[in-house]
Amino acid sequence: MRLQVTKGHGTQNDFVLIDDRTGGLDLSPRLVRALADRRAGLGGDGVIRLAPSATLPEGRDCLDTDPGATWFMDYRNADGSVAEMCGNGVRVVARFAEELGLWSDGELVLGTRAGVRRVRRTADPDDAAQPWYAVDMGPWDLPGGPAAVAAGGDAEVLVTGLAVARPALSVDVGNPHTVLAVADTDELAAVDLTTAPAVTPTPPHGTNVELVVPLGEQVDATGEVVGRLRMRVHERGVGETRSCGTGACAAAMAVRTWAGQDAPAAWLVEVPGGRVRVRALADGHVELAGPAVLVADAVVDTDALGVPTTA
Amino acid sequence: MRLQVTKGHGTQNDFVLIDDRTGGLDLSPRLVRALADRRAGLGGDGVIRLAPSATLPEGRDCLDTDPGATWFMDYRNADGSVAEMCGNGVRVVARFAEELGLWSDGELVLGTRAGVRRVRRTADPDDAAQPWYAVDMGPWDLPGGPAAVAAGGDAEVLVTGLAVARPALSVDVGNPHTVLAVADTDELAAVDLTTAPAVTPTPPHGTNVELVVPLGEQVDATGEVVGRLRMRVHERGVGETRSCGTGACAAAMAVRTWAGQDAPAAWLVEVPGGRVRVRALADGHVELAGPAVLVADAVVDTDALGVPTTA
Repeated sequence: MRLQVTKGHGTQNDFVLIDDRTGGLDLSPRLVRALADRRAGLGGDGVIRLAPSATLPEGRDCLDTDPGATWFMDYRNADGSVAEMCGNGVRVVARFAEELGLWSDGELVLGTRAGVRRVRRTADPDDAAQPWYAVDMGPWDLPGGPAAVAAGGDAEVLVTGLAVARPALSVDVGNPHTVLAVADTDELAAVDLTTAPAVTPTPPHGTNVELVVPLGEQVDATGEVVGRLRMRVHERGVGETRSCGTGACAAAMAVRTWAGQDAPAAWLVEVPGGRVRVRALADGHVELAGPAVLVADAVVDTDALGVPTTA
Repeated sequence: MRLQVTKGHGTQNDFVLIDDRTGGLDLSPRLVRALADRRAGLGGDGVIRLAPSATLPEGRDCLDTDPGATWFMDYRNADGSVAEMCGNGVRVVARFAEELGLWSDGELVLGTRAGVRRVRRTADPDDAAQPWYAVDMGPWDLPGGPAAVAAGGDAEVLVTGLAVARPALSVDVGNPHTVLAVADTDELAAVDLTTAPAVTPTPPHGTNVELVVPLGEQVDATGEVVGRLRMRVHERGVGETRSCGTGACAAAMAVRTWAGQDAPAAWLVEVPGGRVRVRALADGHVELAGPAVLVADAVVDTDALGVPTTA
């Protein structure tokens, strides 16, 4: 059986995308694992099926919230399990929907397992000719409250390569993050994230850890003052990655909090896989903007994967 | 620019294959790196261009040796550098040439930077319906000679997870290998190959290290007595891999040597990425047979890779 797919990435968080406009594809965990396998398959951090929201229960919930949420982002992890959402993946899906002609004007209203997500077009702040996509990632919060900020943090993190544990700030962006500042970009480049940083107190459900270096402020092409920072991230249960959408949001909100009341709303975040822009919205939400690239269209031989599909 | 490629693998050693029958593609190191990038590109251990031997000097040398070597395997490492040959890659190229209709009857005579290689069709010894490809890999040798065998080895190897250094045998298969036996498959599974094993005396140009467990003999579907072994490999300058063609050859020749004069000529070798069969040929050469899988045909957007091609 032949399966048409597209390979794409957002700041090197990469995905196998499937156009399932009829909603008829049986995307089994076994097929997901085989497609995402980097050596025996096509390879990706996840597999995303774009399907009509009306064809699955989670999609019909989204349609109840917003009848405009025609299309659903059915996200699967590389291990075959179902996932709620992916901040980098949603941009790539938006780019994919654009390519397929499913989105032309205004916002794209997308159903996801984390609820309805709205995507708008924007541009690379350093190069207006490069299309970027911006997504409202929902509310963010400091679980430790103002007391944590006043105390210089509500956690301590020991990272391989750093002599002592550092104070860190817990940030919730729908999932848990712990953000610590390191001295400079040299120290950031030198630390070893092949093992998980040790966080104290131990978070009950684990945490993603972001190491950040604030890099000051600049005026972007539109005249807005934006902050800049560089980060590396250790994702809970995964390891170090080239990019983490919610991690960039958490890092920017932590650095903005440390910078105080007059800090910029928008932060340009350098991750190993590229650049994204994080913005604190007036309603307590956080917006993530960044590039989305479609690299290749491919026809996969599912028999060669060892997985017959009923599609 | 759009570039048509194919993704394939041999025992999970994976490649981006390019049909360049006209010989007109300018395959720059930058394009190779971008295609082989596992997150921002399509991903592979290497990129292989199939081109007319007459269109490049190394190919014309092969045509001088054998006028039947019409096609040339232009192998590039993922880092963009030129490589001589790849034991798993040559099978995948043979499968690719078959798919393209460039090889139907008899042997495929292929030009490579290591000289002319001959590929013949065979079958999975455990499943005659599965096509395998067999390649003459050239001569093999024990640099330490009979004295090394009599002494129980000519090197010692210390592997993380093993308490003491073990005696090991040097095997040359065009490139250097050091083979050591471990106690059983549990010990094999438990060792840590994230760091390179320490080999004494230090080989001047480094070495690939194979850890092997002999698994006895069996009679295959054709009635031949074949040996069996399981192995893991640490490739020089690369790290642990799912499969190494010359490593499988070295491992089988070492185990065959240890087994003595009446040992089988053919050995079924279990590598993490699958199974191959290694055969000692009467002329002092070694033959490697195994599967080759074409997973997907893809059209890559080289602009999305950030690499314009002149093809």
